[in-house]
Amino acid sequence: MSFLTRLIRPCVHQAQRSLVASQLPRHSVPVSQTLSRLYSSDDGLVKVEKDKGYAVLSMNRAPVNSLNTEFLQELKAAIDELEEDHHMQGLIITSACPKIFSAGLDITEMYQAPPESTDRFWRSLQDFWLTLYNSRLATVAAVTGHSPAGGCAIAMSCDHRIMADGPFTMGLNEVHLGIVAPFWFKDTMQNTIGQRETERALGLGLLYKPDEALRVGLVDEVVPLENVVDRAREEIQKWIKIPGIARMASKRMIREHTLTKLLDTREADIDMFTSFIQTAPVQKHLGRYLENLKKK
Amino acid sequence: MSFLTRLIRPCVHQAQRSLVASQLPRHSVPVSQTLSRLYSSDDGLVKVEKDKGYAVLSMNRAPVNSLNTEFLQELKAAIDELEEDHHMQGLIITSACPKIFSAGLDITEMYQAPPESTDRFWRSLQDFWLTLYNSRLATVAAVTGHSPAGGCAIAMSCDHRIMADGPFTMGLNEVHLGIVAPFWFKDTMQNTIGQRETERALGLGLLYKPDEALRVGLVDEVVPLENVVDRAREEIQKWIKIPGIARMASKRMIREHTLTKLLDTREADIDMFTSFIQTAPVQKHLGRYLENLKKK
Amino acid sequence: MSFLTRLIRPCVHQAQRSLVASQLPRHSVPVSQTLSRLYSSDDGLVKVEKDKGYAVLSMNRAPVNSLNTEFLQELKAAIDELEEDHHMQGLIITSACPKIFSAGLDITEMYQAPPESTDRFWRSLQDFWLTLYNSRLATVAAVTGHSPAGGCAIAMSCDHRIMADGPFTMGLNEVHLGIVAPFWFKDTMQNTIGQRETERALGLGLLYKPDEALRVGLVDEVVPLENVVDRAREEIQKWIKIPGIARMASKRMIREHTLTKLLDTREADIDMFTSFIQTAPVQKHLGRYLENLKKK
Repeated sequence: MSFLTRLIRPCVHQAQRSLVASQLPRHSVPVSQTLSRLYSSDDGLVKVEKDKGYAVLSMNRAPVNSLNTEFLQELKAAIDELEEDHHMQGLIITSACPKIFSAGLDITEMYQAPPESTDRFWRSLQDFWLTLYNSRLATVAAVTGHSPAGGCAIAMSCDHRIMADGPFTMGLNEVHLGIVAPFWFKDTMQNTIGQRETERALGLGLLYKPDEALRVGLVDEVVPLENVVDRAREEIQKWIKIPGIARMASKRMIREHTLTKLLDTREADIDMFTSFIQTAPVQKHLGRYLENLKKK
Repeated sequence: MSFLTRLIRPCVHQAQRSLVASQLPRHSVPVSQTLSRLYSSDDGLVKVEKDKGYAVLSMNRAPVNSLNTEFLQELKAAIDELEEDHHMQGLIITSACPKIFSAGLDITEMYQAPPESTDRFWRSLQDFWLTLYNSRLATVAAVTGHSPAGGCAIAMSCDHRIMADGPFTMGLNEVHLGIVAPFWFKDTMQNTIGQRETERALGLGLLYKPDEALRVGLVDEVVPLENVVDRAREEIQKWIKIPGIARMASKRMIREHTLTKLLDTREADIDMFTSFIQTAPVQKHLGRYLENLKKK
Repeated sequence: MSFLTRLIRPCVHQAQRSLVASQLPRHSVPVSQTLSRLYSSDDGLVKVEKDKGYAVLSMNRAPVNSLNTEFLQELKAAIDELEEDHHMQGLIITSACPKIFSAGLDITEMYQAPPESTDRFWRSLQDFWLTLYNSRLATVAAVTGHSPAGGCAIAMSCDHRIMADGPFTMGLNEVHLGIVAPFWFKDTMQNTIGQRETERALGLGLLYKPDEALRVGLVDEVVPLENVVDRAREEIQKWIKIPGIARMASKRMIREHTLTKLLDTREADIDMFTSFIQTAPVQKHLGRYLENLKKK
């Protein structure tokens, strides 16, 4: 109940997980498969490079890092692995795809998909977000390109955001597709830029240019593209110097309410997504959108 | 429970209301009376002019648009009418009275008034605010003059605020009258300018000049008086282009918590207002205030 | 339940307390003892100087106003006394120690201390904060020097903050000691500077310089050291002119949620603090810190 329960509970839990991690198989993704992918630097969806005290995770699902079920599960698994490595205190998330951080949710997972599949997709998105937003690691987003919708949500869920200057934008623009960002994306945005700007951002589906993103607080810094990752490496040093348990406890104390809101309603949230996404007007919107993409 | 329930429920509800709107009489204000007033442009309290996709509602209760029970009911009825017109996606709220947007609550409804009357007054204020703050329409306040107390609350409840430059002020200044803004005005302000500035604003009963209002985020733009309504017409175009159901669902997802707080306690809120307003010190304050007004 | 219940209840309560104040002894600190301390200007921990409508309270526990149980109880008692004096509408809190507002919690109360003692310490801290954050008095912090941890919490709990320019800092830096600010310090900071900046501030244990504190909203003004108290006397005039009951009711309406969160869980909060503070890693951190202090 108090901040101290919250502080101690996760640590114990963390320790228990570490102890058993080598003995037990994972539920969602088998360890062997995860590990092989994690360190195959050429064809893996997720590249992880470990440095002293922190890792750089590069999203690598060409061409635009769109988030499908498999990719989301690999991203979550990669963070889980890093959290179990007690040498790791920090995580930089960036992109291996030029000019794009992530285009957000993969529309093909929602268009003409059977309920079992959309259900699994949404659950994977929840799992990934819960893991990232609650991570014991200090997290820095190195946003090296466009970052709409789910891409924006990834950046907002980190502890610090550095965006590349240039013709890039970031925002929760779901409304233009006739759909609505999940409430936990909305909450994450509200925690970042406040309620009033979130109303504007969601209502108009705003995509912020770097200087606008900086002005409203959607990102913390804007630097030239070629410096983004280096700046992130510098920034993460500040965070990983802080005593890890206290830093993690402070973060969870602040984010707990937002995390709990989803944890308490996640099955209902999945059911609703699954029924909503199959309604005729939404399918029509998505179909038209995919049609336009193909023409480009 | 999830954002999707919230998204779908209001749409269904909206559709049902539309279907039955022509068959059933309203409870609070008979349709016939409302309609006749709505379109009588000279002597009506509320003037509504429809344009393509949106309407301009002008408050027209001379001299200062003070909000009494009748006026509040007409304002609510006018918004209800527009919401039932499926050609309408946007609403601009402005004033037909020179130099004033609205002076806020009509003190004569609170001074030496019988309980049934203050009860009905407060319920009408709640009804109007619940309708405006939850409106499916995109709403822009064209603040063409002073906007204290309830006038400020109307502006803050819109999606966007444009204020006239000049010797005008806006704020929740109730404290100077020895009374306290209702908690839902406070919540609306907090949603607009954040908690810290709201503490200052309410504690000192601050009336912000246009540039101050802009700086703290109480308004989104300040333009010359003669351009306020034109700018509002321009701004509303951006909002009504967004797919209406998704835009409405985004807005309600964000505002739901604030709306629910009042919906869950409105009878108690009315009871308390009615008993509070009749206490001797409050009546004395109000009497003195009315006395001063007459002298001017 | 409604804002009006909240408004009326505290006033009645206040009146009742005033009526019985002269007949009943206090629980925590006997009135006689408190009074003698309050007005002994040389050796008292808390100096109180009354002016017209307000008082200036100077923290006077040399060398750095560190908050131990006795000092916290005296601070609370001094505020209680002022609240019962109906001539008093405002309170300026400042420091009698040069270059420091308050260094925060006294580490010696936490290091190698028996549970009964840490329990009493934490309860005193809660009591003091609940009294200050909920005070019917308008409160202005005249921050005449460093203000880390608990010192920052005192300043943030006032209605207005004026900080001295110079080589001083303010912030919740507990994380550097391997501990975590209590959730009610976190809430108070969030109410002051918003959630995003609070995440940075707590996660990195930031100590803000005067200009940075001003930029993020942690203080309202920065003035030369020699002017801080005079500016506070000027500022308090604005607040004490506002009708007192309405001003108090506005403040409580806004702060109630934060106060209630602690009131509802304070025993659990004490238990957790007491068990947490006795864990080996925390004691080790505190011991090392005290060792370093002695070397200086």
